[in-house]
Formats: sequence, structure tokens, C-alpha cells
Amino acid sequence: MDDLNTTAEKIRTMEIRGAGRIAVAASAALRDHAKKLKSLPMKEFEIKLEEAAKTLVDTRPTAVSLPNAVALTKRHSSTNVYAAIDEIDSNAEKFIKNAEEALDKIGRIGAERIHDGDVIMTHCNSHAAISIIKTAFDQGKDISVIATESRPRRQGFITIRELNDYGIPTTLIVDSAVRLTMKKVDLVVVGADSISVNGALINKIGTSQLAMAAQEARRNVIVAAETYKFSPRTLLGEMVEIEDRSSEEVIDPEILKELPNVKVSNPAFDVTPAEYIDLIITEVGAFPPAMAFTVIRDYLGLEIADI
Amino acid sequence: MDDLNTTAEKIRTMEIRGAGRIAVAASAALRDHAKKLKSLPMKEFEIKLEEAAKTLVDTRPTAVSLPNAVALTKRHSSTNVYAAIDEIDSNAEKFIKNAEEALDKIGRIGAERIHDGDVIMTHCNSHAAISIIKTAFDQGKDISVIATESRPRRQGFITIRELNDYGIPTTLIVDSAVRLTMKKVDLVVVGADSISVNGALINKIGTSQLAMAAQEARRNVIVAAETYKFSPRTLLGEMVEIEDRSSEEVIDPEILKELPNVKVSNPAFDVTPAEYIDLIITEVGAFPPAMAFTVIRDYLGLEIADI
Amino acid sequence: MDDLNTTAEKIRTMEIRGAGRIAVAASAALRDHAKKLKSLPMKEFEIKLEEAAKTLVDTRPTAVSLPNAVALTKRHSSTNVYAAIDEIDSNAEKFIKNAEEALDKIGRIGAERIHDGDVIMTHCNSHAAISIIKTAFDQGKDISVIATESRPRRQGFITIRELNDYGIPTTLIVDSAVRLTMKKVDLVVVGADSISVNGALINKIGTSQLAMAAQEARRNVIVAAETYKFSPRTLLGEMVEIEDRSSEEVIDPEILKELPNVKVSNPAFDVTPAEYIDLIITEVGAFPPAMAFTVIRDYLGLEIADI
Amino acid sequence: MDDLNTTAEKIRTMEIRGAGRIAVAASAALRDHAKKLKSLPMKEFEIKLEEAAKTLVDTRPTAVSLPNAVALTKRHSSTNVYAAIDEIDSNAEKFIKNAEEALDKIGRIGAERIHDGDVIMTHCNSHAAISIIKTAFDQGKDISVIATESRPRRQGFITIRELNDYGIPTTLIVDSAVRLTMKKVDLVVVGADSISVNGALINKIGTSQLAMAAQEARRNVIVAAETYKFSPRTLLGEMVEIEDRSSEEVIDPEILKELPNVKVSNPAFDVTPAEYIDLIITEVGAFPPAMAFTVIRDYLGLEIADI
Amino acid sequence: MDDLNTTAEKIRTMEIRGAGRIAVAASAALRDHAKKLKSLPMKEFEIKLEEAAKTLVDTRPTAVSLPNAVALTKRHSSTNVYAAIDEIDSNAEKFIKNAEEALDKIGRIGAERIHDGDVIMTHCNSHAAISIIKTAFDQGKDISVIATESRPRRQGFITIRELNDYGIPTTLIVDSAVRLTMKKVDLVVVGADSISVNGALINKIGTSQLAMAAQEARRNVIVAAETYKFSPRTLLGEMVEIEDRSSEEVIDPEILKELPNVKVSNPAFDVTPAEYIDLIITEVGAFPPAMAFTVIRDYLGLEIADI
Amino acid sequence: MDDLNTTAEKIRTMEIRGAGRIAVAASAALRDHAKKLKSLPMKEFEIKLEEAAKTLVDTRPTAVSLPNAVALTKRHSSTNVYAAIDEIDSNAEKFIKNAEEALDKIGRIGAERIHDGDVIMTHCNSHAAISIIKTAFDQGKDISVIATESRPRRQGFITIRELNDYGIPTTLIVDSAVRLTMKKVDLVVVGADSISVNGALINKIGTSQLAMAAQEARRNVIVAAETYKFSPRTLLGEMVEIEDRSSEEVIDPEILKELPNVKVSNPAFDVTPAEYIDLIITEVGAFPPAMAFTVIRDYLGLEIADI
Repeated sequence: MDDLNTTAEKIRTMEIRGAGRIAVAASAALRDHAKKLKSLPMKEFEIKLEEAAKTLVDTRPTAVSLPNAVALTKRHSSTNVYAAIDEIDSNAEKFIKNAEEALDKIGRIGAERIHDGDVIMTHCNSHAAISIIKTAFDQGKDISVIATESRPRRQGFITIRELNDYGIPTTLIVDSAVRLTMKKVDLVVVGADSISVNGALINKIGTSQLAMAAQEARRNVIVAAETYKFSPRTLLGEMVEIEDRSSEEVIDPEILKELPNVKVSNPAFDVTPAEYIDLIITEVGAFPPAMAFTVIRDYLGLEIADI
Repeated sequence: MDDLNTTAEKIRTMEIRGAGRIAVAASAALRDHAKKLKSLPMKEFEIKLEEAAKTLVDTRPTAVSLPNAVALTKRHSSTNVYAAIDEIDSNAEKFIKNAEEALDKIGRIGAERIHDGDVIMTHCNSHAAISIIKTAFDQGKDISVIATESRPRRQGFITIRELNDYGIPTTLIVDSAVRLTMKKVDLVVVGADSISVNGALINKIGTSQLAMAAQEARRNVIVAAETYKFSPRTLLGEMVEIEDRSSEEVIDPEILKELPNVKVSNPAFDVTPAEYIDLIITEVGAFPPAMAFTVIRDYLGLEIADI
Repeated sequence: MDDLNTTAEKIRTMEIRGAGRIAVAASAALRDHAKKLKSLPMKEFEIKLEEAAKTLVDTRPTAVSLPNAVALTKRHSSTNVYAAIDEIDSNAEKFIKNAEEALDKIGRIGAERIHDGDVIMTHCNSHAAISIIKTAFDQGKDISVIATESRPRRQGFITIRELNDYGIPTTLIVDSAVRLTMKKVDLVVVGADSISVNGALINKIGTSQLAMAAQEARRNVIVAAETYKFSPRTLLGEMVEIEDRSSEEVIDPEILKELPNVKVSNPAFDVTPAEYIDLIITEVGAFPPAMAFTVIRDYLGLEIADI
Repeated sequence: MDDLNTTAEKIRTMEIRGAGRIAVAASAALRDHAKKLKSLPMKEFEIKLEEAAKTLVDTRPTAVSLPNAVALTKRHSSTNVYAAIDEIDSNAEKFIKNAEEALDKIGRIGAERIHDGDVIMTHCNSHAAISIIKTAFDQGKDISVIATESRPRRQGFITIRELNDYGIPTTLIVDSAVRLTMKKVDLVVVGADSISVNGALINKIGTSQLAMAAQEARRNVIVAAETYKFSPRTLLGEMVEIEDRSSEEVIDPEILKELPNVKVSNPAFDVTPAEYIDLIITEVGAFPPAMAFTVIRDYLGLEIADI
Repeated sequence: MDDLNTTAEKIRTMEIRGAGRIAVAASAALRDHAKKLKSLPMKEFEIKLEEAAKTLVDTRPTAVSLPNAVALTKRHSSTNVYAAIDEIDSNAEKFIKNAEEALDKIGRIGAERIHDGDVIMTHCNSHAAISIIKTAFDQGKDISVIATESRPRRQGFITIRELNDYGIPTTLIVDSAVRLTMKKVDLVVVGADSISVNGALINKIGTSQLAMAAQEARRNVIVAAETYKFSPRTLLGEMVEIEDRSSEEVIDPEILKELPNVKVSNPAFDVTPAEYIDLIITEVGAFPPAMAFTVIRDYLGLEIADI
Repeated sequence: MDDLNTTAEKIRTMEIRGAGRIAVAASAALRDHAKKLKSLPMKEFEIKLEEAAKTLVDTRPTAVSLPNAVALTKRHSSTNVYAAIDEIDSNAEKFIKNAEEALDKIGRIGAERIHDGDVIMTHCNSHAAISIIKTAFDQGKDISVIATESRPRRQGFITIRELNDYGIPTTLIVDSAVRLTMKKVDLVVVGADSISVNGALINKIGTSQLAMAAQEARRNVIVAAETYKFSPRTLLGEMVEIEDRSSEEVIDPEILKELPNVKVSNPAFDVTPAEYIDLIITEVGAFPPAMAFTVIRDYLGLEIADI
């Protein structure tokens, strides 16, 4: 088992998890794998490279950062293997550097939207959203956070622990209390699983009703998203499939067994329409959701031809 | 300790719970207590009756069915004690009979709004809402139900068990999945804690965001509410206070202890504005929320003078 | 075949048509029939009266004016036949007089909402709506009308002829041009097939999208409706069924025969929600749609006990 | 009469009709005409080329595909006639090829938005919209279509015939039934006459109220539009004029003659605002309406300087 | 000149102003005048009484409290003059007492809607709105007020002086700053010039855009209105005319004279639709705007027959 | 004191005012100053150039045209001073020419949106908005204008004088009359202080409530804005601060002194969200607000790297 397969396996088994870490690992693995192919003839090199790319992409079919990382790493315009590997090496270096710096840049840009005294609501557990909150706190702003529990997996508990340890005053609420609590909120900051060409946000189940409640109360919703979260395939009309996860996350299987007329529906994500989003903060700037295509083409750097 | 105090204590300790059972018990206790005062002079009778009424009402200051039951039971226009007791006895009989028949009547009226093939979403665990669903099912309509978990106390688990045992196909979802799931829903049916003069619904936390999601998707929201759930005191401008319940319902106190910067907000109810509600089904008919005053005055039978 | 059956037959075959004419004919027929039963014993009188009422109501199960007319005519509190017939006679006289004067009163009240220079849009062919328009024109107001074609039966052609003959400048549009044309409109005036307890309007297919376009452009929508158009049975939760009419109204059956994969859906009515309606003009005054229950109980004079 | 004039005449008399066919014919005619001017001096060549362009564009002043085709075909950066003709030849080849492939590409991209089981509503008769529907059907998806009659010219009859012959289950409705029927619809797919820089859609009369009804019910509206349907002149603020067509399409002129107070308004198109549109499917990808400028500049390839 | 004419003159010249003072003065004047007619025969008494009523009502044709006061004072069911005068005397006593107590009662009911810490926005200068604010302040609630300037007559200056003298912290803003400032506001409280049967509020110019801004930000709007502000004539469809006041209130006439192409439009009132209003606080309770008819009929006590 | 400082001083003291004039003066001053530095070594030249740029920018920290002019003028890619000065000279020439021609171009593009017979509402006093109105008038269109007073500084008086002198019929209204008057309006045209990357408009206080009223009545809002009004710094998340101006603009300080409990809030600008804006007319074309980023990057020519 070579390194590419090891990495692929780790991604599949979720040993490597989180959109950013997956993307960085895949880019590095593809680069390393390409280097090992240096003695092949060009045509065979291309075939093997495509196979490796496919191996990586297939590990998590719904994660958008993975095919983006692979597409950006593998592309080259060389006609000989050594030059191709050089390009790929440079691609990977650039991708990995950007990915590693993205959280900081998003933190700095997003923190500009937070004012002294603001109460920020967040959902689930997003590195990028928390980066914005911590940066604002580091700037000395007197802020506090309202975090949702985020059933069924209760990632809100990770968020409150992380904010607690950073010293940021935080209030935990159940997901049902979002609308009632919205009147105390100044700004909503959430992360992204992926963003489609029409500016729709795919994110943890519950995000869209939080955004709807914010819209109703006319609170701004800020999405923190690295450019590699934008989905070029939506340019082709492709829709994001919503994964239905195990019922065990919601109810004890022993209890469910006693209830023959009861099923569980446990969708992992939902879709927030662009009109509920004020700004998407990326590492290359703050954009309204309608600009998603420009981010994909001009900053992520992928076009229809690449996908 | 006489029977009035026993009943008051059972209401206070929640041995007697549920708006309907509380109302019936209070009406009966006040009636029985009045009978014991038959040998008093009229003036003293009135004083003792008021004291008894206050004892009952004070046990649960936020439950609207309790003061309604007491006000409707105690009122009389007699100038001698025996006649007064007769009136009170008759009031109690009428109130208790109405209360006991209300669920059935609501079930029959509400079931008219359910069509063959409908998917009904409900929240928490409401006797009146479930009466409507079961009546429609008894009429042979091919229906199914989507029930929310209703964190933090997860009363949705009582609902799915009850529907399962009745043979009604039911799907359980977490509270965060309400908006995503709404597109599969034909009709929303919820219960009521209380209803204010402007048609606003006070009910279990999460009801208002479910109703907002229904409104966004233009699904009708039906509220099942006995007339004794309508709040005459809102005529005087009084607002319903939202109880903040223990953090232990939301998070293990041991964990919370480790998190000095974290607090919990655990509101028990929220307020759904009238414009998110299509119809309120009472035992005396189906009304739009704007008719709440007419229900209070002409059907519940309480006016400003009574409160 | 006696007169009741003749009238019933004429209603069934649509020889007698139009909500007002049906109601008046039914009231008169029931009154005349009751008089013929004068020699029966009271108990038998009641049974025969109920049978006669049922005969009439069953001729057109969806028309709301018919059961209203019958319920208002037949009710009495007498314990002997002669007195009962007197009451019924008086009921019929009152109902028929009111019905006959209603159009004029609606015309006068509704015309107050029309200003000099107004452009009024109307749909289909409503006697009550046209009464308002003609009254405003008679008052010397310089008005004009935009009338929709009202496919499939094109009742708009009756409307434009009627307005033309009255000398009112009128513009005919196809139903698809409603939204574009709305910016030239000052006020929308339509009739009603029936009105439910929550103020929803059931009227000719297309009314609800006209009202939606008016709402979007913030033009007021006025509904002209005699009190006998209000539906007491909706108090019991009953919903109005939308009749699906023959495909021949929409497409030549010869053509349809050649198209095995094509069906036709031809609903006769649609439902306009109360929030798209500004005022309902009845013969007893102008009411917001939320007041429908008050109209039913206090002016039409029917309660749950009567239905 | 040379070929350019023949083509111009055919466009004027609608012998050549349909935005795509007009565009292709005009591009070819201009190319052929340019070749005939090869012996002219450069300056005169330019003058004659401009005259020819004007001749073509003037035949149908409101069709946007025509000036787009002409502008894209005629432009060149050469200073001698032979090279200019080469450029024009190449422009025409590219434009015609793109135009001919556009329907297929739009079909494939748009079909991604259609799911198994979907009910699709469409209006009028659009090649591009039908291409999407047929492609989805070809992919084996179990779909059905609801088609509007599209008065006054009833192009819906062409649509139902075309879908019938393709084996797609289709339901015909009158235009007034759009809002009532919307609750059975999963997705709306319509074509485009033109699209302005702010993403507004100009299309067959009735499109905007169908889109409004879809928006009210939160159904997505997909517009199928070749890039040559986008209007660069709207960049200069120019507004699209709505043609008012003959009254004979709406009413028999003999009848109209008898009605001196009646006029007919028969607008051919209406304007759907961008906020009622989810995605515009072009042959180069799926875009939100706010991206119309990017489509015009970067994919259609026209800028203010070209118009 | 007798007392009736003196009072009429004072109302006409605005020596007596304010809806409440006008109503009380008119009621008293009509009562006193009736007493002077005691020696007339009944028929002549009626004629003279009607003349006196008309004299009063004609002084200010647009003020709704005036005809309400007159109608409520003059009505009687007696057939002899002495008894009629007794009834009128009693009517006047009751009307005046109610009017005088109304402000206090409105203050107490409305103050229930104000919470500790609330920031209240108000417009123009309304006794009833200020009664609510002062009552809440008297209850020890820590409140502050944002008052608009209320151009052109700047009645906001009266309001800030009155609140300043009462010790209530107040912020003055220009009318253009309403929407920006709304995010600091918890509740809007305004008065009423009149209220129509569909719950629309006619009040000082600017009220409707303040209410619109409140609605957009989902802040509640409370209207403080004595029952005599409700307009029974709107039952008959009558619309409230908006008075256009002198241009001198807006611009120096000397400047305007130099500007021949400039006119001034200076409407005194605007109309706030019912959907922007949460509650109307009257002296007999808090009602949603849809209940305006019930207030008119059951509490103001006027029906169509009276108007 | 050299010329740069003189210009800086004039900007600071508002002797030079208006976004366009400030931008032109700053560009010229920086160019002239750069020329005086020609004998410096390159490194020192850069330092002095940056100091000069800072001097200019610091004079008015909130005006966006000033830093835009400075950034576009100073940037160069030369490594020697003479070449750098040449670039700066050319930058200044281009910037100043564009700025001077912008009003005319905006006038011509914007006038296309105005039709014969239109009534246009405008707010405050914007050169660019008035350029559009005058151009439409020059084209012979029969238009009229409704101008708001624009308290507190009443710049509406400048507008009505300017329109009067041009012969355009104009109506003056107070700011509170905007919503009532909107029903007479066909189109709203306003200027811009600055425009952020998400298409939000920062403009004179009151603009946002005028735009909200236009949106409610579905009237289009056109913003006239030179490209140098777009704010590149908002790409970095920076929010526009709203200046709070002196209370003396609102109330006589002598009166305010007597009112210890009264403060004045006098914000100079407000923020209109993109969804209330139809089109932004710039000198390079008409754009929907979502295209603000494209205007900044591709037409204003500033990127994150420049700011």
C-alpha cells in the first residue's frame, strides 16, 4: 500500500476529516504520487495520474474541497513528465499554502464586520466562523456568542468548549430556541460545507432555518468559506445531494425497534438560499453570494473546462 | 389540610399536570370548597371564596387554563350563600363537561382540514393536535405524520410512541430539520399553551420557527386549542412571560461546571405571530386568529370586568 | 311533480342559475311547500320539511347560497304547524327582500371606494362587482375598467358587453396579461362564489393570481359579496371542494383524442387567501376579511347550531 | 435582389422565425455578403458592411438575437479587406456552430436540475425549455409536465403536441389556473425572449405571473436561454419595449366592432424580475440572474464598445 | 350668538383643538342646547336638534371624534321632549366621563406592553401615546424615548419638551432618520387621528413610513386610540380624505414665489395599513386592528343605523 | 505651505467639496506634488509620495472618492523617478478626464430609463441624479420631479431651485410624505455617497426609507454613481462608518440647553440594502448592485492588492 492509498484510506475512514485537512492531504498525496511516476512515459504518466486523482476523489463523493484540491493540483500544460511534475509540485505548494493561510485571512476580513458589543449567533462547529469570532475578540472587542446545540451530533458542544477556553462569553441554546433568541443577536456567522454557483449555501442541518430567522429579524448572515468550498460542478447544473445519516444519531435503536410505525429521517445538511446571506467571507475578500461564479472562475481558478 | 389545599399542592408539584386536567381539578376543588362554606354569612363567604380562588391561581402563575377555570367557576350573581353555591355548582358542572368534551369536538372539526394522502407535521406533544390526527386516521384517511424531537425535553418521543401505538405511520426528525423537511409536508397541526387577544400563540419552544418555515413554504398552520387556552388578561395589555427552565435539561451540569464562560438559556415557550397561523380549531368552531377576542368574550365567556 | 321538485329540477339543470337567483327560488319554494303541509301533525310536518330542505340542498352540493337560503327559511321555534308556517313565511319574505336589495346596497357602499379617474380591474362576470362599478359611474365618476377574458368560459365577454352598453370605457385583456397590466390599475373589484370563516375567497379560477398581482403592486382588492355567500359550514372546519370541469371547455375533444399522453385539468374556482383582500363589501357594510365570522353569526344569522 | 436582401425579407416577413434561426441566418447572410465585397477598397468595404448590418438589424427591431448575431459576425480588427473577410468568415462559423450546439448543451445542463418524479410547469413554447425536459426524460427520469394554454396565440398547444409525441405525460391548463396548480409543481422551466443586464427576463406574456406564483410557493424557476438572448444594449440603460399585438388575436373583430366603448390591450411579452428567477441555463453554464453582465461580456463577448 | 354657536366657532377657529377636547365640548354644547329647546313641540325639537348637530359637525368635516360625540349624545328613543332631554343629558354625561377617563385607562393598559429597558419610538405629539409612556415611567420602568421632529409643524418639539419635563430621557431625530434608528428601538407607540373599519390608521403624515420601518425590522407598533377615534362611516365604504395643508408650513412663501416651476404638496395625514399594526390600545382594552368593527359596534356603540 | 497642503487644507475646510471635485483636486495635487519630487532618489521619492498621499487621504477619512483618486493616481510600476512621474501624470490625466466626463455619460445612460410622462422622485441634491433628469428633459420627455426637503440641511431646496431654473416642473414634499406620495411616482433616482462590495448604497440620511417605500410600492430605484464612488475597502470587510453630525442642524442650541433630558441624534447617512436597488448607473454602464465587485475590479481598477 503506497502513500496515496494510505491517504485515500484515511480520508475514507475519516481519520483525516474536515474540508481543509482533506484538501491539503489530497493535494500533498497527489503531488507525492506524481513524483513517483517520473520514470513513466508521458502518456502512461497521464493515465496513472488520472487514476490517482480518481482514487482520491472517490473516497468522499460529496465533499467539494476534495475534487477542488485534486483538480487544482493535477492540472498542467507540459508535454514531458519532468516538467509536468514540476507544475504539479508548484500547484500543490500554492494550494497548500493558500489553504493554510485561508483561516487567518478569513478571520481578519470577517472580524471587520463585528463591532464592539456585538452578540454573534453561530451554528454547529466551523473553523472559519470561529476564526472570525476569535479575531474580533483578539482585537479587544467586547463580544459574546450564542451557540446552538446542533442536534443530532451536538457539535455545538465542541464550539462552546472552544470559545470557553478562549475566554469568550458564550450562551448555549437548543436548536428550537433560535427564532426566539434572534432578537438578542446582532450578527450571524456560520461556516460552509459548499457554495453553489447561484450563491446557495450547503451547510449543517439547521443552518437554513437559522438564516431564515435572521432574515425575518433583518440580522445579517455572514458565511465564512475558503474558496475551495465553492462548487464548480454546480456550473453544470449539478445539484448537491443531501446525505441521510444513520437513525442512531437521533434515537436509541433499541427504542426504535419497538416502534414499527416509526421511521427516522436524519438529513446531514440543508440549503440556505442566497437571499438569506449578506456576505461570504473568503480568504480573497468579502463577496455577496451572487458573485459565487466570479469566485469560482477568478479566485478558485476552475472553469467548466476543468470539471 | 382540606381538599382545596390538596388539589393546590398537586397542581404546584405537577402531580396534576396538563392544561385540561389542571383546569378541571381546579374547578372541582373550588366547587367542593364553596360547598363547605355554606354556613358562613354572605360577606365572609365571598372573602373565603376569593381566598380559595387565589390559592388555586397562585400555584401556577403562568398557566392560563387555571385562572380561566377559577374565574368561570366562582362567578355568581346571588346575594345569599345557598344560591351562590348553586350557581357555582352549575358553573363547575358546565365547565368540566365542556372541558371533557372539548378534545373530541376539536378532533372532529380539525379532521375536516385533513385530506386523504396528507403528510402532517406536529411539534412537541399536544393532546388536542393528536386528537385531530387520530380522528382523521379513524375516518380512514391515508395520512402520515412528521414529528419533531422537541428538545430539550424530547416530548416528540411521547408523540411518536402514541402515534405508533395507534398505527399511524410516523417519521421522527430533529428540530433543525424542520425547514428542509417542510417541502414534504401538507399541513402543520400544533397545540397551544395559550392564545392572546391579538391571535398570537404561546406554545412549546420551537413552534414559532416551525410556523415560520410553514409560512415560507405556504403550508397552512392549524392550532388546536380549547377555549380555556385563550388569555383574557391580554385584553388588559398583559404580556405572557416566557419561563426560563433549568440548564440541566440542555447540558450535563458536570460538563457545564467545567465551562466558566458558558451559560445556558432554556426558554420553555415562544410566541408565534397571528400571521403565521391559518386557523385555530376550538371546541366551538374554527376561527382565524384575529377572532381571538370574540372567542374570549362570546365563547369562553370572560370580559374585562371578570379579570 | 309539485313546485318544490320543479324548482329543484330547474336548479339542478341550471335553468335557474346564479347564486342570488338560486337562493331566492329555493327560499320561495320551501315556503310554498311548507304551506302545503299545513294539515300534517307537527312531527310529520318537521320530517317533511327536512326532506324538502334536503331535496333543495342536494341539487347543487357546492353552492353556498342554497343551503344558507334553506337554513334561514326553514328555521322556526314554534310547536304547532300553523305558527311554524307563519314563521317560515316571514323568514322567506325577509330573506327574499334582503337578497333583492343586496346588489343595490353593495353598489352604493362599494362605490364609495372608487375615486374620480380610477381604473378598475375585474375578473369573470360578477353582478355584485358590476353593481359597484355602475354605481360609481352613475355618480358621475370618470372611471374605466380593465376586464379579463376569463378563460375557459370567457365570461369576460359578458362583462365587456355589459359595461359597453352602459357606456363605461373598458379594455379587454387576456388572463396572462394581468400582472403586466396591474401597474395601470387603481383598484381591483371582484365577486365571490363563497367566503370562508377565515376570510378566504372562493371565486372563479384566476381570481387568486389576480389578487396576488394586486398585492404585489399594493393595489387594494375589494370583494363584492352578499351575506348569503358566506359559508357557515367552514366554522366546522369543512373545506370548499374545487370542482374540476369538462376538458371540452379548454380543448377540442377531437384534438385531445389524438394526444394520448395529454390530460386536461380544468378547475372552476380557486382560493384567495384573506391577506390579499382589503375589504369585503356586503349589503350590511364593508368588513375586513377577518370579520367573516361576525358576518356569518350576526348578519347572515347562522350559527353552528343551525348547520 | 441579392442574398442579403432575400434573407432580410424572409426575416421581416417571418418566413424565417425563432430567435435561433434568425440569428444563424443573419450571421450567414452577412458573411456571404461580406465576401461579395472583396474587391472594394477598405473604406468603402466598411461602409457597405455597416449598411448590410443595418439592413439586417432593421428587419426586426425588438429581437435581441439579431443584433447580437450581426455585431458578433461583423467585427474585425483588420486593415485590409481580405483579412477582414477572413475574420468575418471565422466569426460566422463560430457563431453558427455555437448557436447550433446551444440547445443540446442547455438540455444537458438543465436536465441536471430535474429529479426523478418531478412535475415541471412550462409556459408558451420554448425550444430551449423543451430541450431540458426531453433530456431529463431521455435520461430515464419519471417526469411529467404541466403546460399552460398561453393565450392569445395558444402556443401551449404546440408544446403539448410536441411532448405528447415524445411520450411525456402532460397536463394542459388554462393560464388562470397557474396559481392553484402550482402546489403540484416541483420546478418551473421557461424560455427567454431576451435577458437584460440586471437579470430581468423578457418573455411571452404570462411568464412573470407564473414566476410570481412560483416564488410565492417557493418553487424554483429555471430559465433556458442561449447566450445570444442576453441584451448588451441594456448596459446602456436601454429598456426593452413591449410590443402590443393585434386585437384580433384576442377577440373576433366583428364582435369588437359592435362594442364602441371596448378596446383591447394585447401585450406580447412581460418582464420577470430577477428575484423570481433561480438560475439561467445557458450553453456555457448555469448562472444566477445577477451574473447577466458577466455572460454578456465574457461569454456572449459584447461590450459597450461593440454596441 | 348662543353657546352652541360659540362652541362651534371655537372648534372652527381651532381655539378648541385636539380630538378629545373637541368631542367633549361638542357633547356638552349639544346637551346644553337641547335643554334650551325644552318648550318646543316634539317635532320641532327634533328638527332643531338635528340642525344643532349639523352645525357642530360641519365645523371640522374631517375630524372623526366630532360626529361620534354628536351622534352618541343626540340619540334617544323618547317621544316627548322632556324625556328626550333626559336621555341626551345622560348620554352627554356618560360620553364626557368616558372621554375624560380614557387617557388614564389607555395609559394603564398600554404600559403593560412596555418592559424595563425599552426604547420607545414615537411620532408627532399624541396625548394617548404619551399617557402610555408616562405610565410606564411612573411604574419605575427604566425607559427612554426616540421622538421624531415631525415636519412640517414640528410637533416633535412639543413631545420632547413634555417628556423632558417629566424626566424621561429622550432623543430627537429628523424624520429621515427613522429607518436607520429603528434598530435601536424596542417598541413603537403612536396616536391616532382616526381608525377605519378595516383597521387602517389615519394619523400624522410620516406615521405610515415609521410603521413600515418598524414592520421591516419586526418591531411591534402600538396605536393608542380612544374608542371615539374609530370611524363608523367607513362601514359604509367612506374613505378618509387626506387634507392638503398650506405650502407656507413647508417653505417660505417669498422663496416659493421665485420658483414658478415649483409647487408644494403638504398632506397632513397618511394611512397605515392594518398589517403594520400589532395592537390598538383603547380605554376598553387592547385589540388587534381586525377587531375595529367590534370596537365600533360594541364599545363605541354606533351602528350603520346611527350614521 | 506648498500646493499639496493648500489643496489638503481646502478639502479639510470644505472649501473644495463634493465627491467629484475632491477627487479631481486630489489627483491633480498629487500629480503636481510628484513632479516637484523629481530630483529625489527613488527610495526617498516613494516615501515622500506615500506621505503626500496620506496627507490628502487623511483630510476626509470617510469620503470614498478621495482614497480612490489617490490610489489610482499614485500607482506606478517604474523603478526610476522620471518614469514614475510620467506614469503618475498619465494616471492623473486619465482619472481627471474620466471624472469630468462621468456626469454626462451617466446622464445619457440613465435617461434611457425615463419615459415620457414619468414622475421621478429624488432625495437630497445629487449632481449625477440631476444629470439623468436633465438629460431626459433635454430629450423632450414630458417629465416632472418630486423632491424631498431632506432635513436637516434641506438640500432639497438646492434641488428644487436647480430644477426650477431648468424649467422642469417640480413638487416639494417633506421627508415624512415619501410613502404617501410614492403612489404618484414612476421611478426613483438618487445619488450615492459610496457603494459597498455587496451593492449596498451609503447615501444621505433618508435614502434608505425612500428606497424601502419604493420597494413596497414596487417602483424601481435607480442609483446614479460614478465608478469612483465604489468602495474597494469593503472587499476587506470594512464597514462604512455613519458620521453623527452636530445637533445644531436639527434644533436651536438655546432651546436644547433648556432640555437636560433631551439629546439629538443626527446621522448624516444611512445604508440602503442592495435588494431595494434596481440598477446602478455608472459612466461605464448600468449594473445591478450585485455587480459592485466587478465594477471595482474591472472598471474602477482597484483590487485588494491596491488597498
